[in-house]
Amino acid sequence: MRIVIVGGVAAGMSAASRARRQNPDVQVTVFERGADISYGACGLPYVIGGDVPSFERLIARTPERMREQGVGVRLRHEVTGVDAAARTVTVLDRDAGRSFTEPYDRLLIATGVSAVRPDWAHTDLQGVHVLRDLPDGRAIEASLQGAKRACIIGGGYIGLEMAEALRSRGLEVSLLEKGPDVAGRMLDRDFQQRVRAELERHGVEVRCGTTVEELIGKGGRVTGVQTDGGRVPADMVIVAVGVKPNTALARAAGASIGKTGAVAVNARQETGREGVYAAGDNTESTHRVTGQKVHIPLGLTANRMGRVAGVNMAGGDARFPGVVGTGIFKTFDLGAARTGVTQAEADGLGLKAVSVEVDSTDHAGYYPDAAPIRVRLTGERGSGRLLGAQLVGQPDSVKRVDVVAALLHGRGTVQDLFETDLAYAPPFSSVWDVLLVAADRLGRELCEE
Amino acid sequence: MRIVIVGGVAAGMSAASRARRQNPDVQVTVFERGADISYGACGLPYVIGGDVPSFERLIARTPERMREQGVGVRLRHEVTGVDAAARTVTVLDRDAGRSFTEPYDRLLIATGVSAVRPDWAHTDLQGVHVLRDLPDGRAIEASLQGAKRACIIGGGYIGLEMAEALRSRGLEVSLLEKGPDVAGRMLDRDFQQRVRAELERHGVEVRCGTTVEELIGKGGRVTGVQTDGGRVPADMVIVAVGVKPNTALARAAGASIGKTGAVAVNARQETGREGVYAAGDNTESTHRVTGQKVHIPLGLTANRMGRVAGVNMAGGDARFPGVVGTGIFKTFDLGAARTGVTQAEADGLGLKAVSVEVDSTDHAGYYPDAAPIRVRLTGERGSGRLLGAQLVGQPDSVKRVDVVAALLHGRGTVQDLFETDLAYAPPFSSVWDVLLVAADRLGRELCEE
Repeated sequence: MRIVIVGGVAAGMSAASRARRQNPDVQVTVFERGADISYGACGLPYVIGGDVPSFERLIARTPERMREQGVGVRLRHEVTGVDAAARTVTVLDRDAGRSFTEPYDRLLIATGVSAVRPDWAHTDLQGVHVLRDLPDGRAIEASLQGAKRACIIGGGYIGLEMAEALRSRGLEVSLLEKGPDVAGRMLDRDFQQRVRAELERHGVEVRCGTTVEELIGKGGRVTGVQTDGGRVPADMVIVAVGVKPNTALARAAGASIGKTGAVAVNARQETGREGVYAAGDNTESTHRVTGQKVHIPLGLTANRMGRVAGVNMAGGDARFPGVVGTGIFKTFDLGAARTGVTQAEADGLGLKAVSVEVDSTDHAGYYPDAAPIRVRLTGERGSGRLLGAQLVGQPDSVKRVDVVAALLHGRGTVQDLFETDLAYAPPFSSVWDVLLVAADRLGRELCEE
Repeated sequence: MRIVIVGGVAAGMSAASRARRQNPDVQVTVFERGADISYGACGLPYVIGGDVPSFERLIARTPERMREQGVGVRLRHEVTGVDAAARTVTVLDRDAGRSFTEPYDRLLIATGVSAVRPDWAHTDLQGVHVLRDLPDGRAIEASLQGAKRACIIGGGYIGLEMAEALRSRGLEVSLLEKGPDVAGRMLDRDFQQRVRAELERHGVEVRCGTTVEELIGKGGRVTGVQTDGGRVPADMVIVAVGVKPNTALARAAGASIGKTGAVAVNARQETGREGVYAAGDNTESTHRVTGQKVHIPLGLTANRMGRVAGVNMAGGDARFPGVVGTGIFKTFDLGAARTGVTQAEADGLGLKAVSVEVDSTDHAGYYPDAAPIRVRLTGERGSGRLLGAQLVGQPDSVKRVDVVAALLHGRGTVQDLFETDLAYAPPFSSVWDVLLVAADRLGRELCEE
């Protein structure tokens, strides 16, 4: 059994390891277009910000170690074509400059996502960056030499994390967002404002409702961003306006692309094209709360899909359980987390959703360092089931979103959350943890009309 | 409707508030033997240790505020008798030194627990203390003047928290434990050893397997503890060998006492004696994992029972959902948490339990301040259901025990835990949170055999 894996980061390497563990007789070859495998891409902002001392620290498994596990790793090898009928891929050796054909019995397409570059971002100006992979991170690091003013375009996870990172490096930072507020795709409006306030508290100039028109440069280096609201000076620009799944190879293999724009698969990560699997950021998944297909490219999801694909390609039987829309980020001293759907998302789906907000403290109110935590809990009128939660507070405190995620996994109700026997001692929470208070209030709201 | 509540701390005051909210027409009177109501008893060690500046900070609601809510509060009034047929209680006004009879339609017995005092602890020596209520706390505070060496007897929650508190106050601290290790009723053996190591790392002399024989004194003040292993010098002794439910009044009312030694109630907190309810630390509950009656006196449980009793006494219908055995504590820089049953407890109950241990880090390994976290996860062979979890690590990191508690509430399986869409970003966890790694390993263990 010859397994070929295209892409050597989260999904691809998880699949490779898992396939070999499932069946030591399978032959596994990973083709990675870049020069690195198996690195924690989510850690890139923390290297740039100086929290993590080097990019090398993000590398979880070296090619040598993978080879010891019996996984062949070919770096700087790009799979440029596929013949799904003949079960072969065409591989370009980027260093040698020549292509060859490689046969497979099972093919995993784990090609990830690319950063979206709007028209105005297609430029040769130096100092303009996206942040998706290690080379991007290294390029930003190099570009930081002498840089004084950064402009981040886009207020999503990457933009928010990079705002902190670049402030840590001493730069003046502006953050431009097209939508009405930052974190717009993650949180409801009032929670977005908390995030924005945290940015501003740390000296980030935030301009929302701002459309970028073009990048301005001089002498080959970027000098500013022209927007519909004026010019923002910058000698470094981070374009973080979103990602798009890399689906060309999947299309070439005859795999279906879902409405989300990502590769469609079943719970075994099969594309429907025989012998062809997909996993990771390029692949859509099922949202257990809404039942809909979604494309939410995140690290755990990618790793989990890779595992499932690896097991199945090697003859086992594993199923991807779907996601519940959990996400978390930190910017400066604020953590924000969400799971399920927001009120806005629920409204958009036509769900009869009700939300309550509760402000409390993350430890007993009298305990030192007790800090504010705010929870919005969303439930469904009629069924009483939980639909989602959003939290903002000290970073460590918002990880309790996982309690709601666990209940959402099993279609738990608001009452289930309220009844949960959560851990209490003064250094850890209030007697009634903020989640319980929120569940109590939401339960009463759901009973009323 | 006249509601009489005996005991004005967690359960009693929760019941009083809730009864008035449920039905503003009910008349509620709380008789509290002591001089304080509604204080956070769990916070006492943190006042003594100096983290919380005064005992007054622990008081959540003053008598005045309760009276504004329409709750009559009578401090230093001890209910000394009950005539459940006549529906009256006898109340001793401790200041006036006279007794009177008070009628009720509904009676809540929320008399809490007392500290166990073995024979050797019945002494008039100064400097010997238990820690259950505010006067105990104040007495310890007074006793600290000039004290240099403390001996804590008992390695449970109170003993462990007091070890930290007294070291913070600059005392030499010895901790004596009869059992083979500290935290013996909370954690499995190897986790106990982690707790012990943390105590020793902070200069606490820990002597396990040590039986106290008598307290030694001179000039009316304690000077040491005589044990079967020699004498331990001390000018202050904290006796923290356990608690026992205060059941005299419940017995007098004709309520049943369960096998646990605490008051037996149904899910509505009814004792079976008409009109008589019980709630709080004096009352037993049902363990949702084992189905057995248990007596686990903890703050959230007491508050929750009080709420349920309050709603029901005022004509509503609420049910206590039971507990899943969740507990958490901090000692020095270590947090420890548990939920469900330990392997030892499962073995004692004849469950076919299997446990795995996983060592990981609480944040991404490369992230600054990532610290070790150890999880033991226990599941049931055959059914695959979760039975429990134990965690030790940095304090904030062990609150993730709540994820397992939430799943235990709904009889979730090890597979459910593994499939849960937990929040990941490098400042919050590893891609595969330690709970997921443990669930993965345990799932495989459960499949073998």
